[in-house]
Amino acid sequence: MAELAAIVLAAGEGTRMRSSLPKVMHPIGGRPMLGHVLASATRAGAARLSVVIGPDHQGVAAMVAADYPGAAMVTQAERLGTAHAVRAARDLFSAGTGNVVVLFGDGPLVRHDTIAAVSARLEAGADIVVVGFDTPDPTGYGRLLTEGGRLRAIREHKDASEAERAVTLCNSGIMGFRAEALRAIIDRIGNANAKGEFYLTDAVELANADGREVAFTTAPADEVLGVNDRAQLAQAERQFQDLRRQDFMAAGVTLRDPATTWLSWDTEIARDVLIEPSVFIGPGVRIGEGAIIRAFSHLEGTTIGAGAEIGPFARLRPAAEIGDGAKIGNFVEVKKAEIAAGAKVNHLSYVGDASIGAKANLGAGTITCNYDGTNKHRTVIGAGAFIGSNSSLVAPVEIGEGAFVGSGSVITEDVPADALALGRARQVVKPGHAATLRERARALKAQKSGK
Amino acid sequence: MAELAAIVLAAGEGTRMRSSLPKVMHPIGGRPMLGHVLASATRAGAARLSVVIGPDHQGVAAMVAADYPGAAMVTQAERLGTAHAVRAARDLFSAGTGNVVVLFGDGPLVRHDTIAAVSARLEAGADIVVVGFDTPDPTGYGRLLTEGGRLRAIREHKDASEAERAVTLCNSGIMGFRAEALRAIIDRIGNANAKGEFYLTDAVELANADGREVAFTTAPADEVLGVNDRAQLAQAERQFQDLRRQDFMAAGVTLRDPATTWLSWDTEIARDVLIEPSVFIGPGVRIGEGAIIRAFSHLEGTTIGAGAEIGPFARLRPAAEIGDGAKIGNFVEVKKAEIAAGAKVNHLSYVGDASIGAKANLGAGTITCNYDGTNKHRTVIGAGAFIGSNSSLVAPVEIGEGAFVGSGSVITEDVPADALALGRARQVVKPGHAATLRERARALKAQKSGK
Amino acid sequence: MAELAAIVLAAGEGTRMRSSLPKVMHPIGGRPMLGHVLASATRAGAARLSVVIGPDHQGVAAMVAADYPGAAMVTQAERLGTAHAVRAARDLFSAGTGNVVVLFGDGPLVRHDTIAAVSARLEAGADIVVVGFDTPDPTGYGRLLTEGGRLRAIREHKDASEAERAVTLCNSGIMGFRAEALRAIIDRIGNANAKGEFYLTDAVELANADGREVAFTTAPADEVLGVNDRAQLAQAERQFQDLRRQDFMAAGVTLRDPATTWLSWDTEIARDVLIEPSVFIGPGVRIGEGAIIRAFSHLEGTTIGAGAEIGPFARLRPAAEIGDGAKIGNFVEVKKAEIAAGAKVNHLSYVGDASIGAKANLGAGTITCNYDGTNKHRTVIGAGAFIGSNSSLVAPVEIGEGAFVGSGSVITEDVPADALALGRARQVVKPGHAATLRERARALKAQKSGK
Repeated sequence: MAELAAIVLAAGEGTRMRSSLPKVMHPIGGRPMLGHVLASATRAGAARLSVVIGPDHQGVAAMVAADYPGAAMVTQAERLGTAHAVRAARDLFSAGTGNVVVLFGDGPLVRHDTIAAVSARLEAGADIVVVGFDTPDPTGYGRLLTEGGRLRAIREHKDASEAERAVTLCNSGIMGFRAEALRAIIDRIGNANAKGEFYLTDAVELANADGREVAFTTAPADEVLGVNDRAQLAQAERQFQDLRRQDFMAAGVTLRDPATTWLSWDTEIARDVLIEPSVFIGPGVRIGEGAIIRAFSHLEGTTIGAGAEIGPFARLRPAAEIGDGAKIGNFVEVKKAEIAAGAKVNHLSYVGDASIGAKANLGAGTITCNYDGTNKHRTVIGAGAFIGSNSSLVAPVEIGEGAFVGSGSVITEDVPADALALGRARQVVKPGHAATLRERARALKAQKSGK
Repeated sequence: MAELAAIVLAAGEGTRMRSSLPKVMHPIGGRPMLGHVLASATRAGAARLSVVIGPDHQGVAAMVAADYPGAAMVTQAERLGTAHAVRAARDLFSAGTGNVVVLFGDGPLVRHDTIAAVSARLEAGADIVVVGFDTPDPTGYGRLLTEGGRLRAIREHKDASEAERAVTLCNSGIMGFRAEALRAIIDRIGNANAKGEFYLTDAVELANADGREVAFTTAPADEVLGVNDRAQLAQAERQFQDLRRQDFMAAGVTLRDPATTWLSWDTEIARDVLIEPSVFIGPGVRIGEGAIIRAFSHLEGTTIGAGAEIGPFARLRPAAEIGDGAKIGNFVEVKKAEIAAGAKVNHLSYVGDASIGAKANLGAGTITCNYDGTNKHRTVIGAGAFIGSNSSLVAPVEIGEGAFVGSGSVITEDVPADALALGRARQVVKPGHAATLRERARALKAQKSGK
Repeated sequence: MAELAAIVLAAGEGTRMRSSLPKVMHPIGGRPMLGHVLASATRAGAARLSVVIGPDHQGVAAMVAADYPGAAMVTQAERLGTAHAVRAARDLFSAGTGNVVVLFGDGPLVRHDTIAAVSARLEAGADIVVVGFDTPDPTGYGRLLTEGGRLRAIREHKDASEAERAVTLCNSGIMGFRAEALRAIIDRIGNANAKGEFYLTDAVELANADGREVAFTTAPADEVLGVNDRAQLAQAERQFQDLRRQDFMAAGVTLRDPATTWLSWDTEIARDVLIEPSVFIGPGVRIGEGAIIRAFSHLEGTTIGAGAEIGPFARLRPAAEIGDGAKIGNFVEVKKAEIAAGAKVNHLSYVGDASIGAKANLGAGTITCNYDGTNKHRTVIGAGAFIGSNSSLVAPVEIGEGAFVGSGSVITEDVPADALALGRARQVVKPGHAATLRERARALKAQKSGK
């Protein structure tokens, strides 16, 4: 098979987004739209990538450089249309016999197999392939005028006859080219049109005039329509989520209310996991078989072992590693900490920069005091240790295996294995004094209200 | 232009709501339905308002008096139909040459421009204007029988011929009148019908018989249909929310899952704000440019500065003022407190009746002890201060700029600037004693279970 | 009326669920699907129940034995079709003159009145009754070929003529039999078909050939379609939820966003309760009149008194009993505890194994330390007591009526009524020492980063 290269047009200003963030950087499922397109191109077999970027979009360049270090980047200084943008990426097709597919950075849902189908059609002899989509309401879109498997023309809505307007197969903008054909045509595309721009779709007419083979494939409208404003961004997010949800349910995951399970592009969930309503899963999350994620949980960058129970109201932050059968309960935050198998942190706790041993139990309100205002320090708790409720563990500190910390203690020094540690004041009782306090408080209140 | 007055019918019992709250007081987007109608009338230019209230609805009167102090209120002692209710508001049109629009307190979604269109049609010469709506399923509604721009009759469903039943333009009940025409007609409306009630729609027949000009305008069904039960209330809430969501997205706000962003009637959100799924925004909230509101946040009566980060699991209550770039993290409640620019309250804290200086950092579990059972007291924390985790700040108390409070401290007295304060017991360790405790606990357990 | 018996087929493997849990045990609204079917059968008047269980489904048997102790259970060792399964339950119809209805354990939404309609039709003379459903897209379903009120045949899709395929009334699988008819037919059903299975629907042909009266009734498709994979499970859950939500709204409960109110099969909610968006209600919850459940609350096994206010971000666990007008606020967990009328637990607290007296007030961060690692102990707080913020109450412990506990105290011994108790260290201030600490921390940081 000929080598496949992809040009991704990502220079658009995205005015209708009303955003200071470049349009293609707006995320879907926790990944910038452009990242989705590059991933699909790569998965479809594109060996070389070229991204056409706007002149003031350093953030886009940085993202591409980080995630796709092999990708070429070219800047489109002026925005003079799609053919003009493709010319900027000329290096990608200036020599050789491969194929080139042109994709859009604001079309995040394009599937790898749609791209692969374009590639296959080029392999089968086409010089150009246009991806069309079918829609019941084609008003405003360019129509694909086909004859057998051939694409005769793309007719803009305003130029279409009544009969042509009845056509429901429309132009998605996604096109594939034999590199040789693209070289032969790209510079012949003119800008003699209302906006004075160079349109890549004009290649269809030129190629047909040359007697070349111009073909088309189709994809669902949902997949190929671009994102131009925040409402369309929300729609694309919704479609992305629905597809992911269906995939997980098919694989044996229970989503009690799929519409309120929010997933990321890289989420991994094993069989027989139960996810209650209203669970947010950010990037970098893996959930092991049979785990239960209860309602109102918020997970990012975390690994959850088999049979673990999380939530409700749990917050797992990056580098939280929850062991098999461990329990993280309500109003608990875990960050950069290993919670070993069978350990429990059930209530109102903050566990950060810590290592919690197997079957250890942290009482309600336990807090690892990991920050001194400048540095972060580690807390290490041994297997089977028991931390009484409302304790403060002032890091760096180590609690030995099987040790016991009394409720309400402030622990500033290491506790040996199997030792008991207390750090709390002795209780003092003043009989009848509550009444005195109440009296005083009422007097103060009366004074404040000017009585 | 002639002066516009509005009569809002708000006396209905609302039996199908099955509620002890008067129907028009049930809120949509955090404001009573009646409040929405009064706001639309005012925005459409109604200079005088008259609200017709049920005899036992003091709560309604109190709301109107508070929010629309200029509005007249009249009580409809008996509920004898819409014309009867309008007669109760006779003072509003008993003299003068203005126009009068009749609205419904249980129709909260009526838009100001729909009312303005009625007003404009009256200005253009009509004596009466009826607002119609088009629906694919008109069964049960009164049909508008029109001829050119004129309204010839309103035909009730049960009285309609087969041909008339095919009409899909229906009567919303909303009507406008030249005051003179209303005066001339209102007392001629009779009650010779099955229910023995006086119907305002009968004015159409009388006016046509008088040779007056009777016109109509149209509005979407969703906008003008009334709320009669809780399911319709939920529908109206949904429509209200969807409209607000669309508005914010168009203005450059990202709603990752619009269906789970709940807004209020007075919510203000600036450009490039990102709102994660499942965020509840009650009345009185303003969010500055570029702020991030993470999932599971609950905001009411709060102002959030530009670039601030809120949540997940944050609760901001009335009079929380969050400065630019400040961070309020998970399981944190803020109430009646200014959090200055760049300050951080990241975990498991309660901050009430307080002032937190710029770039101060409150550790996990910090609690302002603001209440003595009778009075609330203030906590003041200076810029750059660092409060160690799990500290209790017993108000009234002041922590100076740059001061440092040790983790787990109970602070009852002021701390000078740059001082270190500790209020915690010294740690005691009893080697091997955890084993003793476990033994004792097991013995107790055995004893309890009778072994 | 003749006695009604029900056979519930629950032996399916449910391969498409991709689960180690038997299919009929997957819950809808917090109850296993099979439980819903048994409840509907019982409510429809079925006096005897027989459940046909797969050979390796001990969990199913345990659930049935616990919830329906009178039900017979039979094991279908091999899965050879529906008629084969019914034969396994032969004891239920081997004698007597009653009626038998055959239901499916994976059809959880079947309503009692659908079953009652089958029973009534049998009473009216039919020998067999088949429940059909109407669907716009019948492809793949068996069609009911009817003539007047009689069912002439069930035609499988693949065997149907063009005309028969136009029939939209399809076979749900649910059937009723006079016991005598079932006895006469069941063993004559053969397995001469592609899969070599015994199909209960073949009874229709045999009965018609015998000249028996074969009838049909109908039910909505949504109600009778079975659950075969997790996507269908989610759909059934959604339908169940929507029905429950509609019921509660009709009864006078406000659900601000019904789509995010998650209910259980046994939820009870009184009139004029307001439920904000995003509230999860597990099994065993009763909510009294006029209570407010704010957003992001999670309730299970709890009773909430009239006029109580719960949430936002409240977690009520089993055996939490919240009194009239009590308030449970944000980030508060209550478990196995009575909170008496008018008591308040407003912020960041854990209350477990406790009894809180009327009008007592627990400050922010109060924690009942109920667990010693082996045993649970009780905390008792008297009426009108005031617990200062961030206190630890080490159970077993009793705080008397009107007593006052100072903020930040660790209370290990009983506090008499009206006494003041303190258990906290005295504050120490070291002037200027914060600067020293900062210097030290920076030096450490520099050292760590190797500078």
